[in-house]
Amino acid sequence: MYKKYKPEFDYSYTLGFFPTIELLRHRPQDVIEIFMHSSAEDTEGAKEIYELAGKHDIHIALNDKQLARLSLKENVHAIAIFKKYTSALDDEKNHLVLVNPADLGNLGTILRTMLGFEMLNLAMIRPAGDIFNPKAVRSSMGAMFSVNFSYFDTFEDYQASFPGHNLYPFMLGAKTELGQLQARAPYSLIFGNESSGLPAKFATLGEPVYIKHSEKIDSLNLSISVGVGLWELYP
Amino acid sequence: MYKKYKPEFDYSYTLGFFPTIELLRHRPQDVIEIFMHSSAEDTEGAKEIYELAGKHDIHIALNDKQLARLSLKENVHAIAIFKKYTSALDDEKNHLVLVNPADLGNLGTILRTMLGFEMLNLAMIRPAGDIFNPKAVRSSMGAMFSVNFSYFDTFEDYQASFPGHNLYPFMLGAKTELGQLQARAPYSLIFGNESSGLPAKFATLGEPVYIKHSEKIDSLNLSISVGVGLWELYP
Repeated sequence: MYKKYKPEFDYSYTLGFFPTIELLRHRPQDVIEIFMHSSAEDTEGAKEIYELAGKHDIHIALNDKQLARLSLKENVHAIAIFKKYTSALDDEKNHLVLVNPADLGNLGTILRTMLGFEMLNLAMIRPAGDIFNPKAVRSSMGAMFSVNFSYFDTFEDYQASFPGHNLYPFMLGAKTELGQLQARAPYSLIFGNESSGLPAKFATLGEPVYIKHSEKIDSLNLSISVGVGLWELYP
Repeated sequence: MYKKYKPEFDYSYTLGFFPTIELLRHRPQDVIEIFMHSSAEDTEGAKEIYELAGKHDIHIALNDKQLARLSLKENVHAIAIFKKYTSALDDEKNHLVLVNPADLGNLGTILRTMLGFEMLNLAMIRPAGDIFNPKAVRSSMGAMFSVNFSYFDTFEDYQASFPGHNLYPFMLGAKTELGQLQARAPYSLIFGNESSGLPAKFATLGEPVYIKHSEKIDSLNLSISVGVGLWELYP
């Protein structure tokens, strides 16, 4: 019997049909096994899961107790247990860099938005939320399985790994307004923590950028800022 | 002793210093009373609340039990009880229209984003989440107190109230791409429910608009779509 997720586990799991299907499509090699609810066998989602799992010889067990134990707020009808994996960032492509992202729901929304705007490489600077936490997997709706992501202990570590990337830190007080930005690829769009934003030292890196907004709010929500930034630069 | 929020109450409350201060700044006339935690009296947030409340003869009570009872996940150090109010939409200004928004966290994020991009009028078509729910108040970070909002039973009711507004429904399969849109004020940007989007009938209303994204995702998150739409049209 698998237990509720803890960060130190070497596996995690998807909650529900949608992320389970995305996992089977994009990373079948990492799936350990699948649990299905006995009442869900005849649904369309279940059929797709059986078909995909069949192709890759992945075992499916009907096990309502296991599902109940791993479900969060809402009971789900399918769960795939998968091995955690590492994925290297593509040196030739553009990157999104999140410095100390904390909120798992935000992280999931950002992953889904990245996939929508074809930004397929994510660097996270520690301390950072655990992308394998089932809450993040769920809120990404499985988009995480189509995006490369990597953790770095410091921003300097990231920078040393990708010295050819042009840096665009998003921060208040920057000179360049997003609408005027001519980003030169390969680039790294850098965003700070949900509450504190980027540390002041980023103002001297690359070309800082701001998203124009009224002074009636202190800052935009992180996932909104990322969404606007990615959309503006989406070809 | 005030009880945990229910939609049928004629009052609601703010959780924490930040939304309490926003409430006192923008709608002091609706505040019934304020509760402060005994350990918080000397903080900067508390001082600002004392000052604002003093101006408007609003009573502040130290009452740790009341705070504990109304707090959600995290304990907060200040809560203002306020009367629910109605606010009419401005006929001459642009509107955001949400058809059947359900998620309270999304609703709060959208309110904060609206204020950031100076879209100050929100119509919601029922069934719709309760904007007075403390979860929505909290995730709006008090932005709701600076935005006009109104509920309508049907979209037709809304349309009959604002016949001069040009309608721009955001939906997949629309002809106009957001980047090409020349919106004519006063306009109404219309977005559908988080899971189902707008009903097909909206395709024949005004000038439907889409936000270009890859086919790797079904749709963008609602608050991201609204954020991108408002940002693009922000002068």
